[in-house]
Amino acid sequence: MYETDAGKRLQQLAGRPYDLTAPDALTAAGRLERYVCRAGSLRMLYSMQRITDEVLDALQDLADECRLVEQFKEMRRGAVINRIAGWPSENRQVLHTACRDIFCQNPAAPAATAQAKSELEKLKGFLDDVDSGGVCNADGKKFRTLIHVGIGGSDLGPRAVHEALQAFGRKDKDVHFISNVDPDDAAAVLEKTDLATSLVVIVSKSGTTMETRANEQLVCQALRRDGLEPRHHCIAVTGKGSPMDNPEQYLRAFYMYDYIGGRYSLTSMVGLVTLGFSLGYEKIVEFLHGAAEMDLVAEETDIRRNLPLLLAVLGIWNHNYLGYPTVAVLPYSQALHRFPAHLQQCDMESNGKSIDRNGRQLVGKSGPVLWGEPGTNGQHAFYQLLHQGTELVPVEFIGFLRSQRGEDLEVAGTSSQQKLIANLLAQSIALATGKEDENPNKYFPGNRPSILLIGNSLTPEVMGSLLALYEAKIVLQGFAWNINSFDQEGVQLGKALATRLLACMTGSESQPQGLESKLLKAACNTG
Amino acid sequence: MYETDAGKRLQQLAGRPYDLTAPDALTAAGRLERYVCRAGSLRMLYSMQRITDEVLDALQDLADECRLVEQFKEMRRGAVINRIAGWPSENRQVLHTACRDIFCQNPAAPAATAQAKSELEKLKGFLDDVDSGGVCNADGKKFRTLIHVGIGGSDLGPRAVHEALQAFGRKDKDVHFISNVDPDDAAAVLEKTDLATSLVVIVSKSGTTMETRANEQLVCQALRRDGLEPRHHCIAVTGKGSPMDNPEQYLRAFYMYDYIGGRYSLTSMVGLVTLGFSLGYEKIVEFLHGAAEMDLVAEETDIRRNLPLLLAVLGIWNHNYLGYPTVAVLPYSQALHRFPAHLQQCDMESNGKSIDRNGRQLVGKSGPVLWGEPGTNGQHAFYQLLHQGTELVPVEFIGFLRSQRGEDLEVAGTSSQQKLIANLLAQSIALATGKEDENPNKYFPGNRPSILLIGNSLTPEVMGSLLALYEAKIVLQGFAWNINSFDQEGVQLGKALATRLLACMTGSESQPQGLESKLLKAACNTG
Repeated sequence: MYETDAGKRLQQLAGRPYDLTAPDALTAAGRLERYVCRAGSLRMLYSMQRITDEVLDALQDLADECRLVEQFKEMRRGAVINRIAGWPSENRQVLHTACRDIFCQNPAAPAATAQAKSELEKLKGFLDDVDSGGVCNADGKKFRTLIHVGIGGSDLGPRAVHEALQAFGRKDKDVHFISNVDPDDAAAVLEKTDLATSLVVIVSKSGTTMETRANEQLVCQALRRDGLEPRHHCIAVTGKGSPMDNPEQYLRAFYMYDYIGGRYSLTSMVGLVTLGFSLGYEKIVEFLHGAAEMDLVAEETDIRRNLPLLLAVLGIWNHNYLGYPTVAVLPYSQALHRFPAHLQQCDMESNGKSIDRNGRQLVGKSGPVLWGEPGTNGQHAFYQLLHQGTELVPVEFIGFLRSQRGEDLEVAGTSSQQKLIANLLAQSIALATGKEDENPNKYFPGNRPSILLIGNSLTPEVMGSLLALYEAKIVLQGFAWNINSFDQEGVQLGKALATRLLACMTGSESQPQGLESKLLKAACNTG
Repeated sequence: MYETDAGKRLQQLAGRPYDLTAPDALTAAGRLERYVCRAGSLRMLYSMQRITDEVLDALQDLADECRLVEQFKEMRRGAVINRIAGWPSENRQVLHTACRDIFCQNPAAPAATAQAKSELEKLKGFLDDVDSGGVCNADGKKFRTLIHVGIGGSDLGPRAVHEALQAFGRKDKDVHFISNVDPDDAAAVLEKTDLATSLVVIVSKSGTTMETRANEQLVCQALRRDGLEPRHHCIAVTGKGSPMDNPEQYLRAFYMYDYIGGRYSLTSMVGLVTLGFSLGYEKIVEFLHGAAEMDLVAEETDIRRNLPLLLAVLGIWNHNYLGYPTVAVLPYSQALHRFPAHLQQCDMESNGKSIDRNGRQLVGKSGPVLWGEPGTNGQHAFYQLLHQGTELVPVEFIGFLRSQRGEDLEVAGTSSQQKLIANLLAQSIALATGKEDENPNKYFPGNRPSILLIGNSLTPEVMGSLLALYEAKIVLQGFAWNINSFDQEGVQLGKALATRLLACMTGSESQPQGLESKLLKAACNTG
């Protein structure tokens, strides 16, 4: 990326980035109106970035020289891109987009979309049976609660979107999540749940995820304690042929395929079984539709009209050229309170890499640290550092003009929703323009870039678009850095060492004087 | 800090930090056992830091030269340290420690502790009345739910500790939180709550917090809609003499004082009313006791025996000398899932500053970006970047040997709690030592520092200690950077701009062609 002509030009341009604190800097030359990118019902205002038309042109050239859109198209059409050339690797297609490519006659990856449609049909039938009582508990009672057991990609995404769309949830349905191997996580959920009328969805692609299988056993123990038969309550979401693909142990099995990575699996059965139970089948189709629309936008070559690509290259400008090590995603929507945690996973697990797709050490930086909490809450928490700290943090604000639930009240002349939007926009201005002041403690340096991502209302369809927007952004950035965004070798060493520590605990460790034993002793020495 | 002798020595030492990847690097010279610091029932293992005895000695000298412990002592005894010399400022004492200095005969700040004791007595009486039914609703029914309305310091801390100690919560009591001005936040809580048997605690020191007062009105509207009288349900936690200090509008008022900042207010009535309702009075006394004990530890001059100070100076070593811009706090305890969000606020709002206590621009960096999520969940999310990414992130791990609820099960020969601890320790080793591999994708560079903070079990007392540990760490780092950690001028500009945007929305803006109006139009243009 750095060696391309565009990359070199960007390096030069980064020496004197656009000054957002100059008079009329945000509005000069129709900038505010021109620097808007639309996709579906989302629009991104990016006047508050430290960019000029020249920078945008160079970013376009970078996108072209790195073939970002072409690579995205190849991915959608089934190219084997989950690999490191010359080394043993997963060697797989990357086809999460196929899960929602169900609305057109000629899907980009027909076989994968056919599999997705077949699972959707199964799900529709199952949800109908649950609603009608055709599938019910041993006493003939309808299931009204679902416990979702998974971790990482099988937890953060489903949880984030469940929270985001609770306003659309059916009143007679409850959903709980268990993820952590910490036994208190399962215990807290099981304590408050009526297991007799609960479905339990166990989600693990491999069928061997340590945390998930341990939590499954904790739930099964609780079911049996209540005189319930686990296989009448438990549903498997897993890879075909995995140890969990066993009709004798589960009421149903829904499949995910090896071309879908955990952190990209929200629009597969990993997310849809639970969301379908809570929202109903029609709403998950709307959710998929929003995602499918955004996937098409990501194939547009003009960065000014391709929202995911624009978000991706602006992120690269901030991270690789202006040198900011982190990025904050700050939704002005309480419903999105767990969306940053999902993005943190999807982004950092995909792009937290140090070698390129040929196994060579990267020259520059790959993915940043992504973090965030909802506004306005954050304004009363960490925004002090955003405005006046010594660490500079580019911000991606997300907000909606209308609330989901429509319950509001005018206080001091304005509604809460108006206050929310006013604060959202105000923060973007404040970070960009700063403020001079004689008192050094009231001085704001400004020139802290942000984007504003605005929608009309957070519906299931918009949630789908927002998800696909960020998934595509992450993938496109990975292409620019020339890394494999789809493996996660960095999690293996910890797993291997944990196994050795467990061996120390059970006394089966072969080297009782090793580092693991010593650390365990020091940690447990209650002295 | 940089100009001190110790500061200069540290700069030199940072050029060749200790190599954690060398053979036996963690265990050499009894390092693993020696690099342990204890306080109460917490112990910190810090062998996995890139330090030597020489670095520790220099950090001790830095602490001494900057008078860190003396300044902490002065704070606890009522020095006016919330100020910028030569400029208008809040000019206040900083006495959150006085709230828990209730266990000794001679408290460090007697007047403030007397006020804390008096509020505690009031609270005890009130909680007794609620339990006995002496305070009840209009129909004579007992209150069984509490809705806590606050934001920032009046929300994140109480929420984090409520979640952390839910295992100790009384079964007949429920607590909900409303914080965001997003009207969906209140609507979601109100929808699921029986208001007739609910107390509503409104928390705002100034009595004018925009979000909190708007949410109060939303709750009052809902109470009236249900035929309930707000003043029979609402409790004020506020500054004496604030607009909320009004017995005609509230069932009770509990006071916080101007010497307690919002983000340090957890052990004042801001946290204790809600925690007392949920846990009972005895448990909050245990919580205060844990905090009081840690405050005393922070007065020890030897960094090797002063846990908060050691945590503070190790953080400075990583941030200012080794140059890491962020720090991750990763609790291996699902109960602590919101503790990083509280610390993020407390740390970044305190130390996200750019001028020193004399109003001069800082030479080096002040506070880092603090972020985190619980393990093992994070292992399946962002740990890929921690192990193999191009951004280096020092980690503060927190874990406990025993679970809170005691519900566990052996799966594949070990309990979930054992798996949790094994993973915690394994991550610390993996980050430090790394791993050589011929395959570049399986290579782990190591030398990524962490500390392990271990307790026996997360009880109310340990939670108090953990809170006070981090509060003291933050304050001590602020002293080292010579900044005022107790004001938050950086939040003012956004507030002022939000007011102007609201004026644009209601048509009362005097400059309808200004930036605010234009941005509002661009954001709302649904095109």
